[in-house]
Amino acid sequence: MRLFVMAASLRRASYNKKLAAIAASLAKSKGVEVELADFRDFAMPVYDGDIDAATGLPDGARALSARIKAADAIVIATPEYNNSVPAPLKNAIDWLSREKPYPTIGKPVLLLATSSGRGAGLQGITATRIPLSFIGAHVYPSSLGVGSAATAFSDDGARLADDELQKKLASLIGEFLDHGARVAPSRAPA
Amino acid sequence: MRLFVMAASLRRASYNKKLAAIAASLAKSKGVEVELADFRDFAMPVYDGDIDAATGLPDGARALSARIKAADAIVIATPEYNNSVPAPLKNAIDWLSREKPYPTIGKPVLLLATSSGRGAGLQGITATRIPLSFIGAHVYPSSLGVGSAATAFSDDGARLADDELQKKLASLIGEFLDHGARVAPSRAPA
Amino acid sequence: MRLFVMAASLRRASYNKKLAAIAASLAKSKGVEVELADFRDFAMPVYDGDIDAATGLPDGARALSARIKAADAIVIATPEYNNSVPAPLKNAIDWLSREKPYPTIGKPVLLLATSSGRGAGLQGITATRIPLSFIGAHVYPSSLGVGSAATAFSDDGARLADDELQKKLASLIGEFLDHGARVAPSRAPA
Amino acid sequence: MRLFVMAASLRRASYNKKLAAIAASLAKSKGVEVELADFRDFAMPVYDGDIDAATGLPDGARALSARIKAADAIVIATPEYNNSVPAPLKNAIDWLSREKPYPTIGKPVLLLATSSGRGAGLQGITATRIPLSFIGAHVYPSSLGVGSAATAFSDDGARLADDELQKKLASLIGEFLDHGARVAPSRAPA
Repeated sequence: MRLFVMAASLRRASYNKKLAAIAASLAKSKGVEVELADFRDFAMPVYDGDIDAATGLPDGARALSARIKAADAIVIATPEYNNSVPAPLKNAIDWLSREKPYPTIGKPVLLLATSSGRGAGLQGITATRIPLSFIGAHVYPSSLGVGSAATAFSDDGARLADDELQKKLASLIGEFLDHGARVAPSRAPA
Repeated sequence: MRLFVMAASLRRASYNKKLAAIAASLAKSKGVEVELADFRDFAMPVYDGDIDAATGLPDGARALSARIKAADAIVIATPEYNNSVPAPLKNAIDWLSREKPYPTIGKPVLLLATSSGRGAGLQGITATRIPLSFIGAHVYPSSLGVGSAATAFSDDGARLADDELQKKLASLIGEFLDHGARVAPSRAPA
Repeated sequence: MRLFVMAASLRRASYNKKLAAIAASLAKSKGVEVELADFRDFAMPVYDGDIDAATGLPDGARALSARIKAADAIVIATPEYNNSVPAPLKNAIDWLSREKPYPTIGKPVLLLATSSGRGAGLQGITATRIPLSFIGAHVYPSSLGVGSAATAFSDDGARLADDELQKKLASLIGEFLDHGARVAPSRAPA
Repeated sequence: MRLFVMAASLRRASYNKKLAAIAASLAKSKGVEVELADFRDFAMPVYDGDIDAATGLPDGARALSARIKAADAIVIATPEYNNSVPAPLKNAIDWLSREKPYPTIGKPVLLLATSSGRGAGLQGITATRIPLSFIGAHVYPSSLGVGSAATAFSDDGARLADDELQKKLASLIGEFLDHGARVAPSRAPA
């Protein structure tokens, strides 16, 4: 089983990158093949129907699509911007939606979030469910929002500072991987 | 009263540009000073916290902010992408939210949409309400979604092909302008 | 495979009951064991935490929970009320959420809708995804909204009046059942 | 100016009732005429189109409608159930929406929430914005979610335990009342 993990933030010091790294580490410890990607490696312009008509998906979107298609399951750690899906993630979704069939069809996706705001990033997760579902992803019902992002991580970034939350994350990753192993498209009987 | 009208699409032949133009024309006929803007004039990169920290709002976002601050009320005709807010509009919102106080604070905003999809663009409108509210805009409760975008406009683009819908749009614009005249910040008693 | 089908409307002449009946018929024709339930058979009061604390789930909620647990997959045809999940369905979800573990955990759910409104009931579907996901249901990414409910059905109610839409519904039901057969909890390897 | 304040919970010991009481007290201290209502006084059955067709709005919904129409502005403290609008509140909205014109048309509404969950009740607020807007309410852009409900209140219930949050609430109430005084329908020039 191959897992693709990415934070939906372009900021180098993003808290969600830390969260994605912990999720990747937990998945590796369960024997899964993990790719921890950097969203910056998939640069793409703001979606513009004229660019799309003229030249199709930009290179960054094509590269992201290829990584998604190669994966059996996906974990996204997403910021919440203004109570909603962050623009860079929505932009990637809008570009990916221009490939048919959608590269995301049938892919199990787990959504995580960390935020300094009052709501633990949960509104970003909720808003992201809708367009991801539209492009055929099977967004996992459970998710995890980690509040107080600035103090949520151990000093070495290897784990969440709160033990109970770290256990919850480990358990969620395990449950998601079990699910992914059962339902991932590449695991379907021929 | 000054009204700022814009379609939240970068595509030159956008149906939402047609809808924005009709809305602008209806407002002008009511004696309001209208600016019908082209979203392409406010080009900005995908939101990136590092760019934000280094150089602040890009020129396109600053220019858009200035137009918004100069207006008493705003009309946005928005596409719906993947059952949600279109990335270019969310991106503009995310950049604008980095200016404090938000340039949108207290501004009455009317949301319109046209779409070729089954849902008349209403899910784009609904998803857009949330982040616009977060940055302090007073999103008008009523809105209008125009379905079957490809056949929704008269040949000269001067009106909606369906008379009843054109009347509904005219009435909505009138009602919104009356409301805007009462509540717009620049109209507040000193 | 056992499929539970229900319209989330209490009204006897509900268009969504017609839609649920067509969905049930399509599933039966594919050899699946189908229960087409009437939401009125699961009467329950408005959720009240004091009733919950005193007497737990009301009989109607218990009966609905039992039907859900006995099913491998679920189809809900839902009205849209005021751009959101209809109160009777949200009420059932809120009561079901008080049973632990949730009876809906891991259940594949397909959402359909019909509406006389402009948006084909899609906002009801979208709003319903969120609480259903919260109680562990695997809401199927694809869904179908049928507009113009008053004229959407054949005179005998056996099919959608529009052939293309009927084919789309048949294809969606088939695709969902294939998926359900693969992932339904009762089909998991021991 | 008359303000109507209510918690959207039927539970007697509801944390949101405490929050509503504090909001009411803050508004009174600003010289506003306040009605602090108990949601239990507006009992109504689960929405059923057949009841609606036969007998129209039930007494509880009529009484609630009358209180809303008599008010210049409204404050609702709402629980979050399953990441969404609580069924009892959605049920009231669905019943109110059957009166034409909607009793909520043009009414400024401020949404507050308290919750024991990770997200401070913000998803309940967000989900509630949509149907309230649909029935014409002017949902105030700012809102306040209070997390850790069990420890959020002073022992006597007179204030939020956290001073900063209490100040934020007081400031929000003040700002909302100023806004309401300017825009409330009954304050419109003749």
